[in-house]
Amino acid sequence: MSADLPLSTTTRTTLHRLSERGRTERADLYAVLDAGLICHLGVIVDGYPVVLPTGYGREDDTLYLHGSSGNQAMRAADGHEICVTVTHFDGFVVARSLFNHSINYRSAAVFGTARLIRDEARKLAALRVVTEQLVPGQWDYARQPNRKELAATAVLELPLAEASVKIRTGGPHDDAEDYDLDVWAGVVPAQFVFGAADADPDLRAGVVLPDHLKALAGHPRGT
Amino acid sequence: MSADLPLSTTTRTTLHRLSERGRTERADLYAVLDAGLICHLGVIVDGYPVVLPTGYGREDDTLYLHGSSGNQAMRAADGHEICVTVTHFDGFVVARSLFNHSINYRSAAVFGTARLIRDEARKLAALRVVTEQLVPGQWDYARQPNRKELAATAVLELPLAEASVKIRTGGPHDDAEDYDLDVWAGVVPAQFVFGAADADPDLRAGVVLPDHLKALAGHPRGT
Repeated sequence: MSADLPLSTTTRTTLHRLSERGRTERADLYAVLDAGLICHLGVIVDGYPVVLPTGYGREDDTLYLHGSSGNQAMRAADGHEICVTVTHFDGFVVARSLFNHSINYRSAAVFGTARLIRDEARKLAALRVVTEQLVPGQWDYARQPNRKELAATAVLELPLAEASVKIRTGGPHDDAEDYDLDVWAGVVPAQFVFGAADADPDLRAGVVLPDHLKALAGHPRGT
Repeated sequence: MSADLPLSTTTRTTLHRLSERGRTERADLYAVLDAGLICHLGVIVDGYPVVLPTGYGREDDTLYLHGSSGNQAMRAADGHEICVTVTHFDGFVVARSLFNHSINYRSAAVFGTARLIRDEARKLAALRVVTEQLVPGQWDYARQPNRKELAATAVLELPLAEASVKIRTGGPHDDAEDYDLDVWAGVVPAQFVFGAADADPDLRAGVVLPDHLKALAGHPRGT
């Protein structure tokens, strides 16, 4: 699907409130998903909702979620409806009234039926996508998984067919009469940043930090 | 309940994998929850899991979740089992093998039956808790909600009775034979930081940024 096709909006993804914050463009969905490090996977386990943070990656119109083969929620998701939510907190929107306070954020919720990937080659390809989403350049740099490691790893796939994207930017909107109050209003921005890499004490002599890991520091993610 | 009582661990919260990362101490749960800005609320809506990011606050052994009265997921949560997850991403754990890569994180999942707060005074008190979790000092500074605003706001309460806390810290653990590889390993730490406050252009003349908002900048949250 091309980036300018609208996303399906069913009853689930129709925004009942704050509809001006809803975005239906696929490019917005890609941007929110691609900026993320972890997602929150929602799945029904034994009749109850469970929300699990986990690594993920996007390739074209498929989302891949990483987990352990032994994880109960990953197994419960296989063949069932799940919801995967990625959220970036971009700042506080400070208003003169508490009611008009808000948060600048970008969030995407993807709905659909998840499937565990059983084919080895496809699982390996999906793990590459997840790794490159988290640390670009790392897949070709570190030792790749062997068959035993691959068997211990679970990867769910979820098509990007039904989703809801919400984005809020900009300053506060106060009620007309509140603009006379002696109260500060504005935005306090926030971002997620990487610090300086801390080498393993058992690092082999002469091994230096590769450029793709050096590039993480100082580059905010999810902004 | 005191901070040294263990949390209930039912089948749902028994950690089936990585049990060395499970913490059962209530103080750990408080620490993870208190460091957070937003949570991810998992709720079953029309039979399907929905994961919604939202503001929250903790007071003693109760979690309060903020939302709009019109929000479908907030309404669906009332009287039903929910899962509330708070996650802090603390850094990449870079190993010599991709399989041994990990993430340093702190995460809490709280399970239980949520209730919408209907009593006005209790709702106001709960909103104070949520506000102070997000921006300490703001409740007494800005204009507080009137009855109409209060009616348009939904607050869920959830007892902290059943929860799972997972924390991973430290460096990578590689397989013995991989220590001979010429591959960098270590930790790339990450944190969430606030930037300089950006005042609303319609700010009243003479209104300065109050100290409690000034204090946000430069102080990492969730670390």
